Amino acid sequence: MELAIVGLGRMGSNMARRLLRGGHRVVVHNRSPEPITVLEQEGAIGAYTPEDTVQALTPPRVVWLMVPAGDPTEQVLRRFADLLQPGDILVDGGNAYWKDSVRRAAALQERGIRFLDIGTSGGIWGLEYGYCLMVGGDESAFRHLEPALATLAPENGYRYLGPAGAGHFAKMVHNGIEYGLMQAYAEGFEILERSPYRYDLAELAALWNRGSVIRSWLLELSERAFRRDPTLATIRGYVEDSGEGRWTVLTAIEEDVPAPVITLSLQMRFRSRQEDSFAAKVVAALRREFGGHAVKSAEQESTGASP
Amino acid sequence: MELAIVGLGRMGSNMARRLLRGGHRVVVHNRSPEPITVLEQEGAIGAYTPEDTVQALTPPRVVWLMVPAGDPTEQVLRRFADLLQPGDILVDGGNAYWKDSVRRAAALQERGIRFLDIGTSGGIWGLEYGYCLMVGGDESAFRHLEPALATLAPENGYRYLGPAGAGHFAKMVHNGIEYGLMQAYAEGFEILERSPYRYDLAELAALWNRGSVIRSWLLELSERAFRRDPTLATIRGYVEDSGEGRWTVLTAIEEDVPAPVITLSLQMRFRSRQEDSFAAKVVAALRREFGGHAVKSAEQESTGASP
Amino acid sequence: MELAIVGLGRMGSNMARRLLRGGHRVVVHNRSPEPITVLEQEGAIGAYTPEDTVQALTPPRVVWLMVPAGDPTEQVLRRFADLLQPGDILVDGGNAYWKDSVRRAAALQERGIRFLDIGTSGGIWGLEYGYCLMVGGDESAFRHLEPALATLAPENGYRYLGPAGAGHFAKMVHNGIEYGLMQAYAEGFEILERSPYRYDLAELAALWNRGSVIRSWLLELSERAFRRDPTLATIRGYVEDSGEGRWTVLTAIEEDVPAPVITLSLQMRFRSRQEDSFAAKVVAALRREFGGHAVKSAEQESTGASP
Amino acid sequence: MELAIVGLGRMGSNMARRLLRGGHRVVVHNRSPEPITVLEQEGAIGAYTPEDTVQALTPPRVVWLMVPAGDPTEQVLRRFADLLQPGDILVDGGNAYWKDSVRRAAALQERGIRFLDIGTSGGIWGLEYGYCLMVGGDESAFRHLEPALATLAPENGYRYLGPAGAGHFAKMVHNGIEYGLMQAYAEGFEILERSPYRYDLAELAALWNRGSVIRSWLLELSERAFRRDPTLATIRGYVEDSGEGRWTVLTAIEEDVPAPVITLSLQMRFRSRQEDSFAAKVVAALRREFGGHAVKSAEQESTGASP
Repeated sequence: MELAIVGLGRMGSNMARRLLRGGHRVVVHNRSPEPITVLEQEGAIGAYTPEDTVQALTPPRVVWLMVPAGDPTEQVLRRFADLLQPGDILVDGGNAYWKDSVRRAAALQERGIRFLDIGTSGGIWGLEYGYCLMVGGDESAFRHLEPALATLAPENGYRYLGPAGAGHFAKMVHNGIEYGLMQAYAEGFEILERSPYRYDLAELAALWNRGSVIRSWLLELSERAFRRDPTLATIRGYVEDSGEGRWTVLTAIEEDVPAPVITLSLQMRFRSRQEDSFAAKVVAALRREFGGHAVKSAEQESTGASP
Repeated sequence: MELAIVGLGRMGSNMARRLLRGGHRVVVHNRSPEPITVLEQEGAIGAYTPEDTVQALTPPRVVWLMVPAGDPTEQVLRRFADLLQPGDILVDGGNAYWKDSVRRAAALQERGIRFLDIGTSGGIWGLEYGYCLMVGGDESAFRHLEPALATLAPENGYRYLGPAGAGHFAKMVHNGIEYGLMQAYAEGFEILERSPYRYDLAELAALWNRGSVIRSWLLELSERAFRRDPTLATIRGYVEDSGEGRWTVLTAIEEDVPAPVITLSLQMRFRSRQEDSFAAKVVAALRREFGGHAVKSAEQESTGASP
Repeated sequence: MELAIVGLGRMGSNMARRLLRGGHRVVVHNRSPEPITVLEQEGAIGAYTPEDTVQALTPPRVVWLMVPAGDPTEQVLRRFADLLQPGDILVDGGNAYWKDSVRRAAALQERGIRFLDIGTSGGIWGLEYGYCLMVGGDESAFRHLEPALATLAPENGYRYLGPAGAGHFAKMVHNGIEYGLMQAYAEGFEILERSPYRYDLAELAALWNRGSVIRSWLLELSERAFRRDPTLATIRGYVEDSGEGRWTVLTAIEEDVPAPVITLSLQMRFRSRQEDSFAAKVVAALRREFGGHAVKSAEQESTGASP
Repeated sequence: MELAIVGLGRMGSNMARRLLRGGHRVVVHNRSPEPITVLEQEGAIGAYTPEDTVQALTPPRVVWLMVPAGDPTEQVLRRFADLLQPGDILVDGGNAYWKDSVRRAAALQERGIRFLDIGTSGGIWGLEYGYCLMVGGDESAFRHLEPALATLAPENGYRYLGPAGAGHFAKMVHNGIEYGLMQAYAEGFEILERSPYRYDLAELAALWNRGSVIRSWLLELSERAFRRDPTLATIRGYVEDSGEGRWTVLTAIEEDVPAPVITLSLQMRFRSRQEDSFAAKVVAALRREFGGHAVKSAEQESTGASP
């Protein structure tokens, strides 16, 4: 089939590639021209403006956005909404907040544009293995898009989940779970690393992937990470978060659902990014006040010997 | 090769079976005779007393215990220690606390008996897929046992991890991680279940197993569980724990390792087993004291209509 | 001085009383007339409509709202904004979300109305002991209001904290801390209650209030609660939350501040309100799938007689 | 009355002082002689050996130990047990693990020596305000000791709580609660410190102590700490723990009591002492593996100038 991919970052470019390899006609557009040129050489039809993108498609047009969530998605989506016509299809394949997708679907529906929110998982491995696609929004648009979805996903790897927002909601929870899984493995590896034994963590990850209850793809990646750097000596324990973990926690709170593991996984990421903890300073200061316990001075870390 | 399996519960019986199918000579013993008889019919050599068990083996004898951790293991292990001879091998394949295994290995070493602590994962699926075997203890005993280990495990599914206790320590952490993984999935599914969408959780689990970052065996089992009972309406949220989760937390505390996710996973199990929470009563009582907030009366739950 | 109290619930009525006792001229208004009549008998000037309320005051008028946060506050505030004149002062003494107060202050400022957001703590004891008042908003309005604040608060018990929202932000965090304190005491009492000893918890709370590090007003209230019902047998562990705990958690997340204790205190309240936990059901179901572990049937709780 | 204080650290010396001021005959002993000499000048009877200590007392002798928990307590206690006679009283006023106190009481009972475990709270302020004393053990010994307890404690500040271990159990839980309270305040102050407002935290702590729900002694100490250093710029957020927090968590686990707030308070202390978090490294490494997300290099922190 025919569709445009807008936003040619790591994810968007690879998805365009996978679609091209699947024999689809793929129009590609990006804010900066370089990745367009690259994909043109791989068989894509380059479009250097939103207008060109739309004109290169025949109705019902499919424009699939792979741009960062938040403002970038909002702007690109409005731009294309102005260019598309009733019956056309806009897809947001990024990591938008599901409530934004509900709102956007309603706004686009007023113009007759069909909207799909497609949560997309698979990371940099998706080009090879396929992307897991969680689809929410207009069901007729979903059916129209199925040939492309079938190419992008592994076998049985895409599914229609419900009305607008259902795709991004599912992706949000997916990522919240992902935070919890990663933290669980990470705590386990730290307990092993501090044990009286000298475990080879890559070997242990490999072993656990052979028949144990905790085998998983993340554990396969753990093996890779430990093979690359057995003690993780080269990297800092500084962990970003990209929004979906927090949205999961906010949603859990809105639902009155206790979600301690997902929440703590997020909060330990916050903690990982603090040079020092103000809360810990308060506790240390209080211990000094009531018990006369010594505190470490802030200078102790950096002070060298005085003459 | 030749070995005895002592303790023919679900795990022990299936391990004996898998060894028999692998062509090994398997002596089986159990406190109650029934499972011995069953396995005799499948080719095992039944031994109805510890003495018979030992006599049915040729030195160096291998006695592999699959009995519950704690007192049962302690007693059976002492019984066989008295019957075995220097050079023989005692294996604890149960879920013992790793410090017990360190202690037992030292005590057995004084008698010349070689000890292996083998953490065993795979559950009821091990018979079919093989067991993941984490081996600690005497390395010469490990080498002697390799033909059996190769049969019990899937390919590359067994490994020598270090001196006594290293196997059970690794299994303990494995289970701690398992607690965290399960709780992470469980929280995610609860957030989905309370969402404005009507997700088919079995379908979603199946979808996520097709290329997503969180694909895993536990997620495959989630699909099975939701196919069996889509809303889990038939079961109560009452979760036992079998020791290794708590040991993981205790070990983390001994190591000064923060392990919030594993710890909270354990504590939410505790909470699941409480009809009511005394702590929550205290909070409710305090809110009444300072704010005059209403409390629910304990009788409200059970009172029926009055005439 | 002169001011109107609008909203004569438990808090508003008692604050009006304390102001009357302090010799102020207090106009009182409420949606339903009964509490107005009550306070008229105690010396207040009753006003049965917003218009009457405003007319009973001389400029610069002070209207102090004590209505529930959210929609009720929004509506009453808009109503009075339409009736007041430039230079007048509107006070929100309720538990509004601080971002709402920032927004409202800006909207009122366009009309020349001065706004104060005053976080108010003290509960049902405030009438006797005074209310702790955390004041944000227009500083000139604060100065105008000081005679009333001095009456409402205990000595040194009111303070100007910063521009609009600073009062409600401080109150929000106050309540977040309160959640954490209550949960900490509650966990401690549960550990005592399950101990091998037979502690008299009221006596122990009383003892701890005599010189120990953890002495506090909440601990004094704990003593009261346990004297009232030594084992809390009459109440259920069902704990509501009124918004500010969640806002504290949301704000912490916005700030990238790890706040595990406040967060868990909130989540344990969620858990206290669940008859059963879906997450715990998932964990129980998974344990059945991989280990064949027994689950409790949902019917076990309620099974009635069979024919 | 007459008693010996053994162990003249900060706590022991001040307790001896308070007893002297109360008119008691106080024999003092310490491993190193200096603090003995100091207290002799304040009216105490110095004893430079355990033997001298015992000889300076008349039966029934009271020896009150104030030495660090663990090995030091064990050794001193055994030393005095050998010197004392049936009917004499040994008091452990330190922070022993309650199970140790149960064991010690039983061992001493075989020799006819009466044992009391007295949890002692009050820190460096106890000299002035009195110590909160939680007494477990032999009840006749408690009665004998009451004159001293009445001097040491503020009014109503001592109490007999039950058989051996009941005092240290109560003190353990007291400290567990203390961890939770401090962490709750600390999180709140961090949220304030990161807020859009510029709060004076000392002033806010002072304000909250005037009538708010969260007023407490720890909050008074918070005010002192912030007056001393308004932004805590001079100290590091490095927090020790002294055993009782961990024992509280272990005991909660043994009792199947979920205690997330106390547990997380302990674990955040562990985290505060880590230069970097291995768990966070694992999470960062996994994010690189599946998503190609950048990691921070360990060298980034420490790179110094090159020549």
